[in-house]
Amino acid sequence: MRTQVGIIGAGPAGLLLAHLLHRAGIESVILEARSRAYVEDRIRAGLLEQGTVDILTETGVGDRLHREGLPHEGIELRFDGQGHRIDLTGLTGKRVTIYGQQEVVKDLIAARLAHGGPLLFEVEDAAVHDIDTDYPSITFRHDGQAQTLHCDVIAGCDGFHGVCRDAMPESVLRVYERVYPFAWLGILASAPPASHELIYARHERGFALATMRSTTLARHYIQCRPEEDIADWSDDRIWAELHARMAGRDGHSPVKEGPILQKGITPMRSFVAEPMRHGRLFLAGDAAHIVPPTGAKGMNLAIADIIVLARALEAFYRGQGTALLDAYSATALRRVWKAQRFSWWMTSMLHRFDGGDPFEHKVQVAELDYVCGSAAGSLTLAENYVGLPMQMG
Amino acid sequence: MRTQVGIIGAGPAGLLLAHLLHRAGIESVILEARSRAYVEDRIRAGLLEQGTVDILTETGVGDRLHREGLPHEGIELRFDGQGHRIDLTGLTGKRVTIYGQQEVVKDLIAARLAHGGPLLFEVEDAAVHDIDTDYPSITFRHDGQAQTLHCDVIAGCDGFHGVCRDAMPESVLRVYERVYPFAWLGILASAPPASHELIYARHERGFALATMRSTTLARHYIQCRPEEDIADWSDDRIWAELHARMAGRDGHSPVKEGPILQKGITPMRSFVAEPMRHGRLFLAGDAAHIVPPTGAKGMNLAIADIIVLARALEAFYRGQGTALLDAYSATALRRVWKAQRFSWWMTSMLHRFDGGDPFEHKVQVAELDYVCGSAAGSLTLAENYVGLPMQMG
Repeated sequence: MRTQVGIIGAGPAGLLLAHLLHRAGIESVILEARSRAYVEDRIRAGLLEQGTVDILTETGVGDRLHREGLPHEGIELRFDGQGHRIDLTGLTGKRVTIYGQQEVVKDLIAARLAHGGPLLFEVEDAAVHDIDTDYPSITFRHDGQAQTLHCDVIAGCDGFHGVCRDAMPESVLRVYERVYPFAWLGILASAPPASHELIYARHERGFALATMRSTTLARHYIQCRPEEDIADWSDDRIWAELHARMAGRDGHSPVKEGPILQKGITPMRSFVAEPMRHGRLFLAGDAAHIVPPTGAKGMNLAIADIIVLARALEAFYRGQGTALLDAYSATALRRVWKAQRFSWWMTSMLHRFDGGDPFEHKVQVAELDYVCGSAAGSLTLAENYVGLPMQMG
Repeated sequence: MRTQVGIIGAGPAGLLLAHLLHRAGIESVILEARSRAYVEDRIRAGLLEQGTVDILTETGVGDRLHREGLPHEGIELRFDGQGHRIDLTGLTGKRVTIYGQQEVVKDLIAARLAHGGPLLFEVEDAAVHDIDTDYPSITFRHDGQAQTLHCDVIAGCDGFHGVCRDAMPESVLRVYERVYPFAWLGILASAPPASHELIYARHERGFALATMRSTTLARHYIQCRPEEDIADWSDDRIWAELHARMAGRDGHSPVKEGPILQKGITPMRSFVAEPMRHGRLFLAGDAAHIVPPTGAKGMNLAIADIIVLARALEAFYRGQGTALLDAYSATALRRVWKAQRFSWWMTSMLHRFDGGDPFEHKVQVAELDYVCGSAAGSLTLAENYVGLPMQMG
């Protein structure tokens, strides 16, 4: 089998790349290890930056997003029992949209299949070869058959646990990592959201986030220890903890209870692998970087990588040489590090650090107080939250 | 002896308080442990916020400051070998002024003595009494005589090592502290400044700051370990280290050498004692809080405390009750914590942390890159550096 761009992974990154390349007349094949049902149901991120909405809209895959997504113009920061609204739209002119990652994936898969694919699910034993040459290839098994996909370029969009990053020579790869001393316990509940916008709460019991998937599906998170067992968290205990952390000075909690449909514990990590390109292999999204979810940057960053990579591939196939491909890693990493900084900052400002001294606690509150009380401080949060302009990195 | 306000300490805080009270027709006595020559020669901070310049100007002690001070409209942040100017005045409409703390002290002593004092130097064994009553007093020895100063209110402006903070009952005092794992080695040199504005450099060898006291007196600092012996730092070694940390990508260092007149090592600390008032004792300046010098906030914060305290005392003596005095601690602490946050942030962003992992290093550079590349990011630095408006805390 032969194509121009071989894509490993049918998450938002791989699917959007195939979509953008198709629109530019460039062929690609997507190989995905999981089943279609699995990737379409996998619950992940749920907040789209305006730039993410824009690229999906402009390229014809934004119809359902515009019908079903919930545009938000602000968020609330809650500390010392008081809420402070950050007026995202007033400050930046932009909005964010609540729309699940798996919904984006469904829309992109539908578009891919409507354009005739190719998109192979349940691919086994994918491995990349000859990335140092102009003739790389991917071997894999599909439907019991061993196959080889020959291509010009390989896009590694196969996530943190994928094979592509490890295919880069150890000698060129540099890894930056921070593992946080806490995790998020997340629930999906059949209940109205706590508020019409997201609430990020800093509380001495730990961080809490009240968000949503729709007007009838609430998504809530509470900071917990990474080694905790979800079996120790009864529904009652989770609700009690959410109420305690979200309560205002009057003791009233905005969180509304309902049947819990899903619960789980996710560790928190910051991770960057540099460079994001070696030879003809280009990494994008979680394959190259992981952010803690506090800044809602994970999927948006993957999509930003793809916008840069798709442009570079278009230029390459238009005969404009490899300058943009050569610049891909540095260009993408500028934005990656800005998003890493923002996610680290939001995480540091809002979570309880068990070893933290009282000085650290006071500085956290002073930081929140400054961010909410200064127009410039509010804008630094808002402009990162809605997504920095592409040219800023 | 009797007065209305007994002031312990003839630093900028105590002297300015006496000055403002005098203008409001309120009597005070200043007791200072050191000699006049000592406090007038003691080299400390050297950068005045616009608000500090304004209060000195408005109250008639700004003439020499306006003749000899160096107004600055920007600072340079230097990292990865490149300089980035933060246009303080363009961003905020305000300036900062280079003028030594000891010059402010000289001007305020001259004013105090011109108004007839009283201002006692070389006071020994000062101790405060009965601060829980409406009739507090200060006992001390002066010229070999044991004396008692009866007053309505005591202002503790006697610095970090003074007696006033310790006079507050341990049960009410809460202390917040952070000791940093590095110190500053500072020099005063008979040499032109490195640039017409300050240069803050983040370098993998450690932080460096090139500042000045005048157009012919350079003041430079380099980060070092707190336990280092200044005897191990020859002049040649200091210059070599300054050049290395200040050099641009072309290897050129803007630092100009000259005879070193003074050198010393200062530890770095963040410290806040709360509350800043107990009964009739009011703490101000270093007696209540210490900031690391990176944000140039120490003296400016002392002066901001005094502006709040002087207004409260004027209201009290005008018969408007104790509402402002009762609010003093909370009002002053709002600004104190904002300045603590800013000083901690500048310190964290610019210094090398020996235990720091590579992720931390990259986040520092991303933070500097964001601050220099985003107008909002630049403004958060600038508005804190020139001094937040008094009403913002």
